[in-house]
Amino acid sequence: MHLLVIHGPNLNLLGEREPEIYGRATLAELNERITDAARELGATVECVQHNGEGEIIDAIHAARVRCDGIVINPGAYSHYSYAIADAISSVNVPVVEVHLSNIAAREAHRRVSVTAASCVGSVSGFGPESYVLALRALAKKAEK
Amino acid sequence: MHLLVIHGPNLNLLGEREPEIYGRATLAELNERITDAARELGATVECVQHNGEGEIIDAIHAARVRCDGIVINPGAYSHYSYAIADAISSVNVPVVEVHLSNIAAREAHRRVSVTAASCVGSVSGFGPESYVLALRALAKKAEK
Amino acid sequence: MHLLVIHGPNLNLLGEREPEIYGRATLAELNERITDAARELGATVECVQHNGEGEIIDAIHAARVRCDGIVINPGAYSHYSYAIADAISSVNVPVVEVHLSNIAAREAHRRVSVTAASCVGSVSGFGPESYVLALRALAKKAEK
Amino acid sequence: MHLLVIHGPNLNLLGEREPEIYGRATLAELNERITDAARELGATVECVQHNGEGEIIDAIHAARVRCDGIVINPGAYSHYSYAIADAISSVNVPVVEVHLSNIAAREAHRRVSVTAASCVGSVSGFGPESYVLALRALAKKAEK
Amino acid sequence: MHLLVIHGPNLNLLGEREPEIYGRATLAELNERITDAARELGATVECVQHNGEGEIIDAIHAARVRCDGIVINPGAYSHYSYAIADAISSVNVPVVEVHLSNIAAREAHRRVSVTAASCVGSVSGFGPESYVLALRALAKKAEK
Amino acid sequence: MHLLVIHGPNLNLLGEREPEIYGRATLAELNERITDAARELGATVECVQHNGEGEIIDAIHAARVRCDGIVINPGAYSHYSYAIADAISSVNVPVVEVHLSNIAAREAHRRVSVTAASCVGSVSGFGPESYVLALRALAKKAEK
Amino acid sequence: MHLLVIHGPNLNLLGEREPEIYGRATLAELNERITDAARELGATVECVQHNGEGEIIDAIHAARVRCDGIVINPGAYSHYSYAIADAISSVNVPVVEVHLSNIAAREAHRRVSVTAASCVGSVSGFGPESYVLALRALAKKAEK
Amino acid sequence: MHLLVIHGPNLNLLGEREPEIYGRATLAELNERITDAARELGATVECVQHNGEGEIIDAIHAARVRCDGIVINPGAYSHYSYAIADAISSVNVPVVEVHLSNIAAREAHRRVSVTAASCVGSVSGFGPESYVLALRALAKKAEK
Amino acid sequence: MHLLVIHGPNLNLLGEREPEIYGRATLAELNERITDAARELGATVECVQHNGEGEIIDAIHAARVRCDGIVINPGAYSHYSYAIADAISSVNVPVVEVHLSNIAAREAHRRVSVTAASCVGSVSGFGPESYVLALRALAKKAEK
Amino acid sequence: MHLLVIHGPNLNLLGEREPEIYGRATLAELNERITDAARELGATVECVQHNGEGEIIDAIHAARVRCDGIVINPGAYSHYSYAIADAISSVNVPVVEVHLSNIAAREAHRRVSVTAASCVGSVSGFGPESYVLALRALAKKAEK
Amino acid sequence: MHLLVIHGPNLNLLGEREPEIYGRATLAELNERITDAARELGATVECVQHNGEGEIIDAIHAARVRCDGIVINPGAYSHYSYAIADAISSVNVPVVEVHLSNIAAREAHRRVSVTAASCVGSVSGFGPESYVLALRALAKKAEK
Amino acid sequence: MHLLVIHGPNLNLLGEREPEIYGRATLAELNERITDAARELGATVECVQHNGEGEIIDAIHAARVRCDGIVINPGAYSHYSYAIADAISSVNVPVVEVHLSNIAAREAHRRVSVTAASCVGSVSGFGPESYVLALRALAKKAEK
Repeated sequence: MHLLVIHGPNLNLLGEREPEIYGRATLAELNERITDAARELGATVECVQHNGEGEIIDAIHAARVRCDGIVINPGAYSHYSYAIADAISSVNVPVVEVHLSNIAAREAHRRVSVTAASCVGSVSGFGPESYVLALRALAKKAEK
Repeated sequence: MHLLVIHGPNLNLLGEREPEIYGRATLAELNERITDAARELGATVECVQHNGEGEIIDAIHAARVRCDGIVINPGAYSHYSYAIADAISSVNVPVVEVHLSNIAAREAHRRVSVTAASCVGSVSGFGPESYVLALRALAKKAEK
Repeated sequence: MHLLVIHGPNLNLLGEREPEIYGRATLAELNERITDAARELGATVECVQHNGEGEIIDAIHAARVRCDGIVINPGAYSHYSYAIADAISSVNVPVVEVHLSNIAAREAHRRVSVTAASCVGSVSGFGPESYVLALRALAKKAEK
Repeated sequence: MHLLVIHGPNLNLLGEREPEIYGRATLAELNERITDAARELGATVECVQHNGEGEIIDAIHAARVRCDGIVINPGAYSHYSYAIADAISSVNVPVVEVHLSNIAAREAHRRVSVTAASCVGSVSGFGPESYVLALRALAKKAEK
Repeated sequence: MHLLVIHGPNLNLLGEREPEIYGRATLAELNERITDAARELGATVECVQHNGEGEIIDAIHAARVRCDGIVINPGAYSHYSYAIADAISSVNVPVVEVHLSNIAAREAHRRVSVTAASCVGSVSGFGPESYVLALRALAKKAEK
Repeated sequence: MHLLVIHGPNLNLLGEREPEIYGRATLAELNERITDAARELGATVECVQHNGEGEIIDAIHAARVRCDGIVINPGAYSHYSYAIADAISSVNVPVVEVHLSNIAAREAHRRVSVTAASCVGSVSGFGPESYVLALRALAKKAEK
Repeated sequence: MHLLVIHGPNLNLLGEREPEIYGRATLAELNERITDAARELGATVECVQHNGEGEIIDAIHAARVRCDGIVINPGAYSHYSYAIADAISSVNVPVVEVHLSNIAAREAHRRVSVTAASCVGSVSGFGPESYVLALRALAKKAEK
Repeated sequence: MHLLVIHGPNLNLLGEREPEIYGRATLAELNERITDAARELGATVECVQHNGEGEIIDAIHAARVRCDGIVINPGAYSHYSYAIADAISSVNVPVVEVHLSNIAAREAHRRVSVTAASCVGSVSGFGPESYVLALRALAKKAEK
Repeated sequence: MHLLVIHGPNLNLLGEREPEIYGRATLAELNERITDAARELGATVECVQHNGEGEIIDAIHAARVRCDGIVINPGAYSHYSYAIADAISSVNVPVVEVHLSNIAAREAHRRVSVTAASCVGSVSGFGPESYVLALRALAKKAEK
Repeated sequence: MHLLVIHGPNLNLLGEREPEIYGRATLAELNERITDAARELGATVECVQHNGEGEIIDAIHAARVRCDGIVINPGAYSHYSYAIADAISSVNVPVVEVHLSNIAAREAHRRVSVTAASCVGSVSGFGPESYVLALRALAKKAEK
Repeated sequence: MHLLVIHGPNLNLLGEREPEIYGRATLAELNERITDAARELGATVECVQHNGEGEIIDAIHAARVRCDGIVINPGAYSHYSYAIADAISSVNVPVVEVHLSNIAAREAHRRVSVTAASCVGSVSGFGPESYVLALRALAKKAEK
Repeated sequence: MHLLVIHGPNLNLLGEREPEIYGRATLAELNERITDAARELGATVECVQHNGEGEIIDAIHAARVRCDGIVINPGAYSHYSYAIADAISSVNVPVVEVHLSNIAAREAHRRVSVTAASCVGSVSGFGPESYVLALRALAKKAEK
């Protein structure tokens, strides 16, 4: 099983950006944690980060023939990018949305995710662990 | 680690009720799956189901001294019960919200969860696996 | 044909509560009128009244194996109880919503019924006669 | 007792139009069913169908001196014709609104009826039986 | 192939009414342009104009057995006539909505068309050419 | 100066319909009052009443070559008929909107008039006198 | 009959302020026009202008024992001053609202008048003539 | 004078739950404070606490024959329980709503109370003193 | 303890203005009642009334160095005056909002108070007694 | 005449992506169809596809000196990209918006196009034929 | 060049009122800073402060013949005073709106300024420096 | 002091695009004006322009270690790009938003800036001078 993890806008600044919300681990450390978790599940994983909506759509498209599942953290795009939502709907690979913070408990504009509506499910609020749980969800789904 | 799983309204009909949305497993089977998963995590778990808002609030309150974490599926109450949201905020135990289906992809009134805003995080869309992931999230949280 | 009539919150005060809106007949008298009408239709009927959302959900669930149809007056719950709406959707028995008063002609918050959306139909505005018409609708439906 | 039944826009295509929603009976067959039901109630009935808002208003006005009650299915006009609502308010005859389908369970724009607010009550969701129940409601009302 | 073109309210004043928005050609000239375009496509066409909602519904109904397609410019009815939308849904002939002006660039109340939701497609903003393009769309559709 | 007075839907029932809101004078009496007032102003006037949106549009169109001004009481159409609003915009004759009652003080749906936006001005709340004031306004306007 | 005319905020700049909307006559000229019209009606009139909400309320209060009617142009306060609306409701003198421009045809925030809801009626769109018509309306009202 | 004090959902955790908002006194201490205050007013009082909507409705109903007034803190139910609002409207005893915190200064969903609309008045923001003031209000009311 | 009571717009007409809502006592009588109650509490009080938003702001500012608490009835300003709300926030004296009537039970625009959000608490619905309860609340607060 | 066709996000997956909505033709086939249609009209055309908002804006800018018209299918960006709308407004070339599906008949968020407001017109619902009709519209426009 | 600076409601308390938002400088100190900055620009300036909406309107009017530009901080009036917005529109002097705090980052009701819509531009978020920048903007404007 | 100026989408067309709104100066001329102003302030500045959301986010990130302040004109992205808003929040450099035109006075969708909420302040409406004022604000801020 080969998986793709897509980190959306501003996640390259992880560890540095508003650490009281997003934690102190850097993106490299997060990716390590993700890679370890994938290995435990017997899967391989590649991690990419993009700030642009178009690049994220490209990454989703590319994964559709090369990957068995996608974990995506669309960051702020979650709340208005119908283009990314359409990209997720247009590929046949299961996609899981994750958020480091619990978006239901933040500002009003973060309470609805338009991209999650195109995913199979979502996990939010557990910091880096959100990604690990998403990987497990995909692994479990693949078992069936 | 002792955990409580609260199933909200209508979940007693699981397996029978709109199986194309909620799956064919019964509540008993789901609880077995949850108990197994808890055991693997070295935890004990008790599962309750309530159709009433007041009973759910009572269960949350009772758990605050007896449990190390709560997994709750508030069903339709997720979308309007500020009383349950307040109950979750009023206890010091970590609470995780779960949903069998991906509520972001369903009717408009199911897209915002007012109870999730009082939880530490949420998992939705993975059927029974949503509960298992939530247990893991609580176990992981306890490690720290 | 065995039918269940569920009276929702505050209907126990019928005859005493705002009689200019709800009429002067008591709940006992209303139930008599309902029982007579059922008998004429060759049906048996049992009538219950609950003020709690959870009890109403329990009653709907219980009826699914014991009754051939449900007549429900969800009172104020009609306008916000998605949990009762889900309960109605989760049973295979036809459910008809009734209201004593014409809710379309009252306060703004009473103009939309979220529970009626899960029923087969609704009757409102005819006082006790609303229930009788609902029984007939169920009897007619059963003929087919 | 002499009653008027007004069928609103598009009901002339009954039986042909979206039969999965409105059923397969034609308007002629529906009118026969209505006439039979009226006869059983000891009433006479005349049935008209109009696609125009103005004609429906004319029909309501005309009935005020010639009929003892009106059953109206305003079709899509239910949701925006304040002019028909005013017409209903301006006559002293009891008017009952009916719908073949359960409008509470359809598209958002069909969930509120502005015309029902001027009627004594409404019946919806029972196909042709909605009309029969409305006739009964008027007959019952006349008894008092 | 026989087609019907329905011009909605106020289009009889074409050429005279707000020419900076609707152009200087009269309805007669527009109909000539439409007839020529139909002839080029090997089709016959008849053009009607109605100011009343009911007459437009009648025209749509009548066309369902006599025409192979309808081009309709519902004028201001586009924005609130659910009755015309229902009429379009109730016939099995393909219907295309046209507008002389680009309604997306005008007042807020003209930005959503409730009637277009019942059509196969729409063309707006090209003046008389909008009708010609709509005829072509119908002709093309018929080829398949 | 020749003027047209258009009475909209339900005004034919004047004197009979909700007299506590609309007064006890009949339409014939109102028209007499209007004719007298016109005569005093040295004008002639013709009065028509229509319940249909299409007929009102026709009347507005016809007046554009024959009249020097229009007084219109669009009744409930004031609040949603963009088609009548467009008709008023499409003629070069000054149009004044009148209402018998003070629509600003009634139900929420009567507080905005979409047709008044196409008129030169409006008068409401003075009963039959609203029409007389509107005639004066047109006469005054013609002086300039 | 003694009347009070209250000009609201910014009307002291009349003739100078946005003359394409409000005309070129100054407030002094407008007041002359009003005084002449009052004289013709056999009434006396006093005219005041205030930019402050409190002063306008004071003026309304003072008039209640000294005047037989009030004509008020609340300017922009029309759209949000519930305090002026309450002041109008709290006196027993008939109050008529006037506007120089046709507020229904201007910016969205000018389409609803909360102060008009407390008046007996309103006149808008006829420039200085709006005031004259309002005086006539009050004179007529006094006759009865 | 015999009074009933109803504490709504989550108030059993008083002193323990979010003390920075609700204070450090326990429910028992609060009830003592209430009992003392009642005694000073020459009244007797009984205090109950319920987490369920149905139980609160039951308590209100029961009080209607046994008590001379009700003080209710509906907690989060204040903001959506039309069923409790109906219960308050359906009894003839004066009911006063209280809140420990100043709900006008908290989250958006707490700014409107639908239950207060059925009460005679409300007091909020003064901690335990809110209840004492409410008792005085009832005592004062009874004097008249 | 020296307190200030500020009566907002239209309260000078108390006893005369809509007595079915505001009661028959005049402002002078109300002030007497307030003074008596203050004396019982061992406090002195001064009462002012202003119709202008600016004067009310001035009064709040002036009180900040001279008074130990403010009771304010902002009348209709409660519902939109963010300037008064800011004034209350900008002084260090505790401010309590009062209303004679139960604003939660009146027109929709009176259900939210933007000024109450800057106060420590509010009392509404008890007529003159609302002021007395507010004085007590301030006295109680000062004790601590 | 040289034209540019811009395909927006996700259109590279045409034929593969949700074929029940977007059809089975690939982008290459669609471009062939477009090139043929352009040739018939005596025009040359170049076709580009971009998933990124920035690239689409760049393409629009570049076309302003090199092309005589633009056909754009902004995909999901139609519904929120004010940046693309501004880009269209900032070039002097006529731009026509096209959609394969009838966006008026799909999810609520697809019913308004903010980019169409900057175009000369739009065509939607005819599959690949939408593009051909748009080319014709541009060709026709160029004739004038 | 002679300029006027108008400080709106509550700014007289500057330095004392919520210093974490508005800073610790008093109004006198702010005015000194403004006067110095004006002198550097070769301009004279007068500074006024008013808590009343009417006084601010008066000040704007008075400035139109005596000043070459106005800097205004309308405080909370920015968000609802259409009367001040109209006053700004009614004078021919350029007006610049300033705010000490960054209103875009504060409560929802502070995010839209209705008065700024009548100004030539606005500056907010830089404390006292906001005024200095506004003076410069006016000086620059005058150069042209 | 080294500063970065980021011009957002469509600003590369400055001077050419809607000059009645944005002026006739080109981007090169604007940048010269900015460079001169920076030099006067003793600062260096670099200016970039990007049409893509991702590139703008990249530029903001890059500046956080290399610049002492950022001036950004996010163009249309101001109104919906929560991703850019998050980027601004995630760097520790002060960011000032500028707009050439007075966005408060334009279309409704331009009245709220979601990106300004993450900045320290904003300047809009002064054409190229908006940038100069922003530079000064940053220089002033750095002094402290």
